[in-house]
Amino acid sequence: MDLPPLPTDGSPERLARQLGFVVEIDRLKTVLRRTLIADRSRRENTAEHSWHIAVSAVLFAEHAGDEVDLSRVVRMLLVHDVVEIDAGDTFAYDEVGYEDKAERERAAAERIFGLLPADQGGELRALWDEFEERQTAEARFANAVDRLQPMLHNFLTEGHAWRQHGVTATQVRERNRTIAEGAPELWRFAERMIDQAVERGYIDE
Amino acid sequence: MDLPPLPTDGSPERLARQLGFVVEIDRLKTVLRRTLIADRSRRENTAEHSWHIAVSAVLFAEHAGDEVDLSRVVRMLLVHDVVEIDAGDTFAYDEVGYEDKAERERAAAERIFGLLPADQGGELRALWDEFEERQTAEARFANAVDRLQPMLHNFLTEGHAWRQHGVTATQVRERNRTIAEGAPELWRFAERMIDQAVERGYIDE
Repeated sequence: MDLPPLPTDGSPERLARQLGFVVEIDRLKTVLRRTLIADRSRRENTAEHSWHIAVSAVLFAEHAGDEVDLSRVVRMLLVHDVVEIDAGDTFAYDEVGYEDKAERERAAAERIFGLLPADQGGELRALWDEFEERQTAEARFANAVDRLQPMLHNFLTEGHAWRQHGVTATQVRERNRTIAEGAPELWRFAERMIDQAVERGYIDE
Repeated sequence: MDLPPLPTDGSPERLARQLGFVVEIDRLKTVLRRTLIADRSRRENTAEHSWHIAVSAVLFAEHAGDEVDLSRVVRMLLVHDVVEIDAGDTFAYDEVGYEDKAERERAAAERIFGLLPADQGGELRALWDEFEERQTAEARFANAVDRLQPMLHNFLTEGHAWRQHGVTATQVRERNRTIAEGAPELWRFAERMIDQAVERGYIDE
């Protein structure tokens, strides 16, 4: 749908570009993930997921494995999924989708962060790269929080997305083990949650 | 719906409470606002709105009227609406709803922030109070961003919520004038947007 053009003629060029970005990322509200929200009424979208993990990072900061700059973690989590506007959400256990995921998302990052003033777009793009590369304490912790949340939702919805896609407990452990690198205490909890999910029959071993 | 209890027996008490809060606030994804998302496919929910304004604050920080601690602004915006889980969303132009809004939201803040460990709940509660009182540079800027976003959405959806509730341009100016206190450049843009909305027939003068 064509949106009415914003009256940015009288605004500084920087503000016009920032507003363009703000309008563009509204589309993240229509990107659906495989997980349901906790009341099971519908699938979760990526915008609200991003909010949820940003708040979670604020709460869980004390469990980070290494000391982190929380402000950078939060900004990283707020923008790390905007590439899904172009690239879509790739299910964590979708091996085919993962083959070209990196390529699709890089192109999306170029376009979307490119809407902003160069300095600002470059800064957010760098945060996105940092998240993907998982080499800093902030990126490891941010990744841990991002991975814990869908596990939590799967547990709360009695394994909905796991069952729907035939995912096993072994796959879940394998895929999410890196939580331990970013937040050891969260991984200890996650392991118990997976065990419990098996016991309750939400997922096969 | 009763959710399966999380297996937090082996976790520190603090983590158990933090997880309880994380699960509780998932309900914000089901609180609907009056505004539509930009593609007009559905009403916006408060969780995704909170994400949108947190990202906007990061982008617009340079337009803040006074220097702000962006990290505090972002945390403020991430949690300032969780009270709507109990109190619901009050439409900005709903005079009846506003009569007991403060009371309902205070009770909600007590309960919801009270789920957290006391130090952490107290910190977020203080951020919520700060936002509501609008006495600091951070709160004024955060309020400005929070008010600009629904105006933007109304403009993009050709005045959907304004028209549906018979709101006039005069009311919109009156209600949102405080944007100027937090971010003068954003208010100059907002004023042009209101003028343009009148010209385009999205709202009556």
